[in-house]
Amino acid sequence: MKDMKTTTANKTIMAATSLLLAGLLALQNSFAEQPERVGTSPWGADDQIGALNLMTPESRLAILSRIASGETYDLSVEYFVGMPSFHHLGDPGYQYWLTHTPRGTVVDNPNGLGERMNSKVSYTGDAISMYTHMGTHIDALNHFGLDGKIWNGFTSDKHLGDKGWKKTGAETIPPIIARGVMIDVAAYKGVEALTNNYRVSADDLKGALRKQGVRLAKGDVVLIRTGQARHYHEAAKYLHDYPGVSLEAVKWLVEQQGAMLLGADNLSLEAFPPERADNWVPVHTYLLAERGVMFIEQMFLEDLSRDRVYEFAFIAASLKLRGASGSPMRPIALPVVK
Amino acid sequence: MKDMKTTTANKTIMAATSLLLAGLLALQNSFAEQPERVGTSPWGADDQIGALNLMTPESRLAILSRIASGETYDLSVEYFVGMPSFHHLGDPGYQYWLTHTPRGTVVDNPNGLGERMNSKVSYTGDAISMYTHMGTHIDALNHFGLDGKIWNGFTSDKHLGDKGWKKTGAETIPPIIARGVMIDVAAYKGVEALTNNYRVSADDLKGALRKQGVRLAKGDVVLIRTGQARHYHEAAKYLHDYPGVSLEAVKWLVEQQGAMLLGADNLSLEAFPPERADNWVPVHTYLLAERGVMFIEQMFLEDLSRDRVYEFAFIAASLKLRGASGSPMRPIALPVVK
Amino acid sequence: MKDMKTTTANKTIMAATSLLLAGLLALQNSFAEQPERVGTSPWGADDQIGALNLMTPESRLAILSRIASGETYDLSVEYFVGMPSFHHLGDPGYQYWLTHTPRGTVVDNPNGLGERMNSKVSYTGDAISMYTHMGTHIDALNHFGLDGKIWNGFTSDKHLGDKGWKKTGAETIPPIIARGVMIDVAAYKGVEALTNNYRVSADDLKGALRKQGVRLAKGDVVLIRTGQARHYHEAAKYLHDYPGVSLEAVKWLVEQQGAMLLGADNLSLEAFPPERADNWVPVHTYLLAERGVMFIEQMFLEDLSRDRVYEFAFIAASLKLRGASGSPMRPIALPVVK
Amino acid sequence: MKDMKTTTANKTIMAATSLLLAGLLALQNSFAEQPERVGTSPWGADDQIGALNLMTPESRLAILSRIASGETYDLSVEYFVGMPSFHHLGDPGYQYWLTHTPRGTVVDNPNGLGERMNSKVSYTGDAISMYTHMGTHIDALNHFGLDGKIWNGFTSDKHLGDKGWKKTGAETIPPIIARGVMIDVAAYKGVEALTNNYRVSADDLKGALRKQGVRLAKGDVVLIRTGQARHYHEAAKYLHDYPGVSLEAVKWLVEQQGAMLLGADNLSLEAFPPERADNWVPVHTYLLAERGVMFIEQMFLEDLSRDRVYEFAFIAASLKLRGASGSPMRPIALPVVK
Repeated sequence: MKDMKTTTANKTIMAATSLLLAGLLALQNSFAEQPERVGTSPWGADDQIGALNLMTPESRLAILSRIASGETYDLSVEYFVGMPSFHHLGDPGYQYWLTHTPRGTVVDNPNGLGERMNSKVSYTGDAISMYTHMGTHIDALNHFGLDGKIWNGFTSDKHLGDKGWKKTGAETIPPIIARGVMIDVAAYKGVEALTNNYRVSADDLKGALRKQGVRLAKGDVVLIRTGQARHYHEAAKYLHDYPGVSLEAVKWLVEQQGAMLLGADNLSLEAFPPERADNWVPVHTYLLAERGVMFIEQMFLEDLSRDRVYEFAFIAASLKLRGASGSPMRPIALPVVK
Repeated sequence: MKDMKTTTANKTIMAATSLLLAGLLALQNSFAEQPERVGTSPWGADDQIGALNLMTPESRLAILSRIASGETYDLSVEYFVGMPSFHHLGDPGYQYWLTHTPRGTVVDNPNGLGERMNSKVSYTGDAISMYTHMGTHIDALNHFGLDGKIWNGFTSDKHLGDKGWKKTGAETIPPIIARGVMIDVAAYKGVEALTNNYRVSADDLKGALRKQGVRLAKGDVVLIRTGQARHYHEAAKYLHDYPGVSLEAVKWLVEQQGAMLLGADNLSLEAFPPERADNWVPVHTYLLAERGVMFIEQMFLEDLSRDRVYEFAFIAASLKLRGASGSPMRPIALPVVK
Repeated sequence: MKDMKTTTANKTIMAATSLLLAGLLALQNSFAEQPERVGTSPWGADDQIGALNLMTPESRLAILSRIASGETYDLSVEYFVGMPSFHHLGDPGYQYWLTHTPRGTVVDNPNGLGERMNSKVSYTGDAISMYTHMGTHIDALNHFGLDGKIWNGFTSDKHLGDKGWKKTGAETIPPIIARGVMIDVAAYKGVEALTNNYRVSADDLKGALRKQGVRLAKGDVVLIRTGQARHYHEAAKYLHDYPGVSLEAVKWLVEQQGAMLLGADNLSLEAFPPERADNWVPVHTYLLAERGVMFIEQMFLEDLSRDRVYEFAFIAASLKLRGASGSPMRPIALPVVK
Repeated sequence: MKDMKTTTANKTIMAATSLLLAGLLALQNSFAEQPERVGTSPWGADDQIGALNLMTPESRLAILSRIASGETYDLSVEYFVGMPSFHHLGDPGYQYWLTHTPRGTVVDNPNGLGERMNSKVSYTGDAISMYTHMGTHIDALNHFGLDGKIWNGFTSDKHLGDKGWKKTGAETIPPIIARGVMIDVAAYKGVEALTNNYRVSADDLKGALRKQGVRLAKGDVVLIRTGQARHYHEAAKYLHDYPGVSLEAVKWLVEQQGAMLLGADNLSLEAFPPERADNWVPVHTYLLAERGVMFIEQMFLEDLSRDRVYEFAFIAASLKLRGASGSPMRPIALPVVK
């Protein structure tokens, strides 16, 4: 029964997808005429955090004071050797290695204190190596720019050194405490995960919000669930033709709803192939370079979905990696009283 | 004037230090007679998080509901090439490198989309590599054991593979929300930073708490300020003969006060040379292996000190690095209503 | 026409392969009964280089004095991001990154000498990271052992620390100068590259040698060409079901012909699936652990094949990576007077 | 007695050094007036290997045919964790780590073949990470340029991508076989190693050559021994104020003697502080950018010195690291009949 329903749903979705694709082609042509340019910050020539300026002590307190029970949802995935990552352009995968082990230190005697000491004190040390856009992480505003510039007009010629950007690097991203809303598009569509390459539309978001009985407000952190995180432990499947959020949908979130930060549970927020012929990552450049809106990728939203938690205090603080274009974070959600 | 006062203070401290050192030698002998053994968890044979079991939804709500204003303190340092780290045993320092740059992608054309596309879409990507015990981070219970075992009796023979520990790895550490207390020992002593190799005693902690008008409670996150973070941007100074917390002081915190998690603003919580002749890291093994108490190192507590914020909601979530002996985190503090 | 010939050849090979596979199954059963144990070196309890002991100043001079013209063949492949490598068990691929660039140093001023100096002196620095078994490299004797021991009875319990093996590490491998013989099995079979999973037999080697008019001698470096290097620049193809050398063939080379060192132009010398049910890399353990014979993988033998150069002075010196299980090398061949 | 002699020698050297320094200051002023510009190759607009064009099959055969005995000298150092390297500008040191161990594979079962298989087949794998200018290595022509250009006018704007240089990368460096001459300046001066910051002059080279009874010839590989390799296993000492070769001396070697390739046993061929106020590495830019002459650093020349081997067949082949500014190599020397 369940399978049949899924199949029917799939057919419907596939039909819808065909229509959508046709629409997108038309859209693409119209988009193609709109020029893309980096945005100038309304928060001043020195601004490096864009929409995160919307956050204030008052906005933080407003949501924190509504926390219901202290129950906590972990919105992040694990880091492990073999985890999925964007590797088409040669970026390094996640590596983990041991630098010291209880047995190894007995053989090596690295501290010169001898076998007895090293047999007694069992030391384990380890190291990691990774592309900064792996696991649950935030994209910094410098990750994608337009024409050699990034958000607020900073240029690679003047502001990009060998150790990253002098402007908008991950170290500038403040800890984030805000009202969070999860839009469960997969549940709205009645599927475990959206179909391959499906692009979430603004109507999908509106429909799901209506069904969930939640309204967005300016300054929200908006998380979109595609269901793709179910495949996180099978890298090949997770990376294959994953669904994502359309340019039109993110424009609605940012321009109409005043979203401060976005997030999704797939590899790259947007889906591929790209929606514009003249831009291979139009959602990335729109958000980061044109609007100064950061977003979180590769989130884990399954528990929120299971428990139908749609509104919460969102708390996250990314590592302060100086100059970096992205940074790992482990966001949490605490359900709030309505 | 200030210099003179500092000098006087320093002399006093130096005299006190001499006395202390003599005392420590005596202490060391007495300690040496106490055997060290890994602890068995009161939370069961499967327990992997030790004292963090003290945390409940209720305990979290209790502190969250007292948040005063939404003002947020960032308790973490930055990651940058050249940052301080423990390297005496050959562990890798922090490395950051660019994998894609706006100019480089024009020359390389890695996506095959040509010069026009890559000149327009300005892509920056980067990668990092690091010892897991760098920057502000938490030590997992497997970081130090005794006699080939770690907390709760897990053994390296059965539970340590080439990709880390199957037990108590960093992925098992939950997000932490608890009452936090900062004990400003440097301020209590009237100095900017404690002197070289100074060891904070239980009496120092008691005195500082009295001065601050704060009492500890079971389940607290206790952060100890030595002032060493002032030197964070000069690796040589930060790493040189830094002050730390004595074994006797952490025993008082854990056994008498019921601390759930400790933290400090120096490299390794404890100071060197070690307090026991038969153990080169006795504070580490006491906390991690004997007591199941984790701790955070290399914190930034300067802003809390400046504003005399001693009690707060402590919120932190380390990266879920599977199997790892430590993990970076970016803790924050939100002052609470008394 | 060519295609037809290839097809016919392929059919013949496929038929032969079917027969071979049947034979291999039988063989496998018989092999399964032979126990595998690490060898004890005839060169003494301290020996760490096995068959390379066959090399002497006299043997080196013998071949060097026959060098014909000074023409040099480069037998190695390039290292580049995206190059093929064994990654099924999570090992890191090749990474290359820039640490200093002419433009970056102007922005960063890392040496503190200012913009004028850094604009004038255009500095480029870079770094690499790699699994040690990538590109053209030699397998050290510790790479594969049996039952916790390696060649000559050294044990992981006593001789393996956190920084590699105390015995037979790559730093112990001497520079190699010896008579080299290339056996062009692909040419002998009349194909550009051997078919998928094809296993070179002793008869193949004998037939090719006969055709080439070359005889092997004790102490030779024997290189076997499968033609797989043609696919080196397409990682997926190079790694897919590649042909290799059979256990029976390497036994013939080592036990009957006295080969000192082997080499081939595929990923791992041997082919997969393995020839024994109880050993996933029987050729590796036979050579390294039982016989003390090292070998070189991922060679480039195309130029030798093109010019029908079958006998030469072989010269190679691997990097002295302390403790390592393998090491990159760039072997060269200089044709000799017959 | 020996000590006294050394002391006397040292005094003499110190006196000489003072004189030299005075001279250098004068020299510096005169140099400062000479403009530095990248050279245009006499071997054509596409040339990427500069002086190595001097090598021909005939030149190789000429030296190979003079090899005396097959005795081989290894001119390279080991790679190990803690080895010396240039780290003042943040470049990564050498890292080595195990990716698979006999015990770890039993715990992890990474191949899914179970405990019995992994207990029997004892697998060791490992990985490395390093700055490309570590250990015995060659500097590629792109390592240092002038005014954004490198040897032969290639520019960073057009030829430097995110994966290194499209021109003169290490993959273009051919295997090198040539007449080698070692000039033992330390022995000539009667010391074990030259004093701190000592700069070898052209007269030193001439005097040592006279003493050794060796003449240079066009196309030679010229190796200069300072004795600094004696300190290789003490990184701090090896890196501290090491002696080097003066600009005047390398000019004599290149312009008067026609040297094809240089080498030395210290960190960076040249010594510091630099000889020109307007160039922090004048010897590097002179050789690489102006003259197209590569050189080898961090060599091991002690055995040659001990045995007074001054003339030999020099054979070396660096790893073909695509785009790289340097590459490890393990050169060997085979003494020749006079």
